[in-house]
Amino acid sequence: METNIITISREFGSGGRTVGKDLAERLGWAYYDKEIIKQVAVETGFNEEFVAENGEYAPTKNLLSYILSSGNGTPGIMNGLSVGDFIWAVQSKVITNIAEKGSCVIVGRCADYVLRNRGDCLNIFIHADMGARAERIVRLYGESEKSPEKRLEDKDKARRVYCKRHTGLDWGMSQNYNLSLDSSKIGIEKCADIVYTLVKETEQNF
Amino acid sequence: METNIITISREFGSGGRTVGKDLAERLGWAYYDKEIIKQVAVETGFNEEFVAENGEYAPTKNLLSYILSSGNGTPGIMNGLSVGDFIWAVQSKVITNIAEKGSCVIVGRCADYVLRNRGDCLNIFIHADMGARAERIVRLYGESEKSPEKRLEDKDKARRVYCKRHTGLDWGMSQNYNLSLDSSKIGIEKCADIVYTLVKETEQNF
Repeated sequence: METNIITISREFGSGGRTVGKDLAERLGWAYYDKEIIKQVAVETGFNEEFVAENGEYAPTKNLLSYILSSGNGTPGIMNGLSVGDFIWAVQSKVITNIAEKGSCVIVGRCADYVLRNRGDCLNIFIHADMGARAERIVRLYGESEKSPEKRLEDKDKARRVYCKRHTGLDWGMSQNYNLSLDSSKIGIEKCADIVYTLVKETEQNF
Repeated sequence: METNIITISREFGSGGRTVGKDLAERLGWAYYDKEIIKQVAVETGFNEEFVAENGEYAPTKNLLSYILSSGNGTPGIMNGLSVGDFIWAVQSKVITNIAEKGSCVIVGRCADYVLRNRGDCLNIFIHADMGARAERIVRLYGESEKSPEKRLEDKDKARRVYCKRHTGLDWGMSQNYNLSLDSSKIGIEKCADIVYTLVKETEQNF
């Protein structure tokens, strides 16, 4: 089936966003990343920073209660939903609407899962080894009190828990994506080349 | 770094072996799959069928004791090793020797892990959705008493446990491979094309 949507899931620091932007430019498709955060912020009334943190990462505190919590029957503040579940619900609706507008690349926020019933998505996972990611985040975002390795481990864990909590799936497991690429071995630009070629060749078959 | 070895890990029924054979032919490289079983059988004295079963799959019975068992200090029959650990040790040596002979494609048997310190391996994982795999194994191997889905689930579990037991890694986790491909979405032949192109392009850079 022809591909109309590319979803990019990625390890922090792997260059997944760069792959997504590159693909969108070359294909002439819309690109969604922070645009989703903006829309969710407007619809929920939360500020963008809060949405960015809670729309892709499990909270770093009270992790167990987060994992075990459920929108049904737990004391919540939004129509009986916890804040995390409320943002998830609005974000999923925003992603679904975006996908209906036309061909696009969507980075992050479990878009692969949200759009799982469409059948015209190509789901990509970009990862890289710890050394390459550490070097990249220091170059792009600077140093911080925590070591880059510790920052990456914390991000990985928060994304993994978030994904499990809202989709039931294991973040990073090959079987959940059509193509998983190691950008530190293959190169960020070459990762985009591979996906671009695949999409163009599929187009020609339809 | 230039690629001299391609390792192919794969879900049963995904066509991973076909991808491996195709790659070896097109690259003019040696291809190892059943050859490894033959060599391990010669070196251990076990028959080939026994080696095939115990060199890639956890036993279906006594799974817990298999997971918990260790070569050190447990009552064993081969130099203090359990049968599983003995086959693993010989098989690892066979794979290491094979890789030293020259460029090759090696299918299965955790060769990615065995050769992890070489630095010139491209590690591939081939998977496919359950429907495509079920159709493929019935077409290739015929029906059996168990449903094809049940046969696949049993195989997946035995490979996952075997991998975890001997390498400590999660079988199928993207981060353990350089490239993971969904052959049911991409096509078996196209999977081989992608890997072939990647290897040839890397060659040109050295």
